[in-house]
Amino acid sequence: MPVVKSNEIKLESVSMDNAKHVTKANTIGPAQGWPGDSMRVFRISPGGHTPFHQHDYEHVNYFVRGKGILTLDGEKPTVEANDHAYVPPNVEHQFENPFDEDLEFLCIVPIRGA
Amino acid sequence: MPVVKSNEIKLESVSMDNAKHVTKANTIGPAQGWPGDSMRVFRISPGGHTPFHQHDYEHVNYFVRGKGILTLDGEKPTVEANDHAYVPPNVEHQFENPFDEDLEFLCIVPIRGA
Repeated sequence: MPVVKSNEIKLESVSMDNAKHVTKANTIGPAQGWPGDSMRVFRISPGGHTPFHQHDYEHVNYFVRGKGILTLDGEKPTVEANDHAYVPPNVEHQFENPFDEDLEFLCIVPIRGA
Repeated sequence: MPVVKSNEIKLESVSMDNAKHVTKANTIGPAQGWPGDSMRVFRISPGGHTPFHQHDYEHVNYFVRGKGILTLDGEKPTVEANDHAYVPPNVEHQFENPFDEDLEFLCIVPIRGA
């Protein structure tokens, strides 16, 4: 039964260059049977951010809780719980949390980006 | 800027046979640039359910709020906020909400299933 209960999800620190206060867990991917993509949960605590970077694959995001700033394509909208976003391939982007509670979001990428 | 704010998401009634009290909205897909898959939001109000059915594509689910029963492969686990699930192709499944608050979840499928 491929149900992943929330209490089984263990977020681990992300050690990418220029990531700060970021943890993540991979939840659904090839190990569960999904052939081409990977679902991950990210959490950024206050003051943290992902790298300002780009890559040759897209990602799809869903914001679970908290608020953040998504820098993308020259804009910096605030994103918050229940918003969705599409980050195209080869566009520089960054998630930042300058607010006072954790930002948590889903990020779906092709396997090669997981 | 492909950010879909939660207040722009308009859920519409699902008219599939044997669906009851189900609404949905497509949020991220080809129109936003995602080439192969579609992200949808589903809401099932108390007493509602999706059809007990199968199809030849998989789906990936994330449970946003409320609780439900996911019938899949002979089991009937309770699923609730922050759980994830993978429903393989060609396996009969159903989401039911016998509880007293709305069940809301994400469902990612290949475009041909959207």
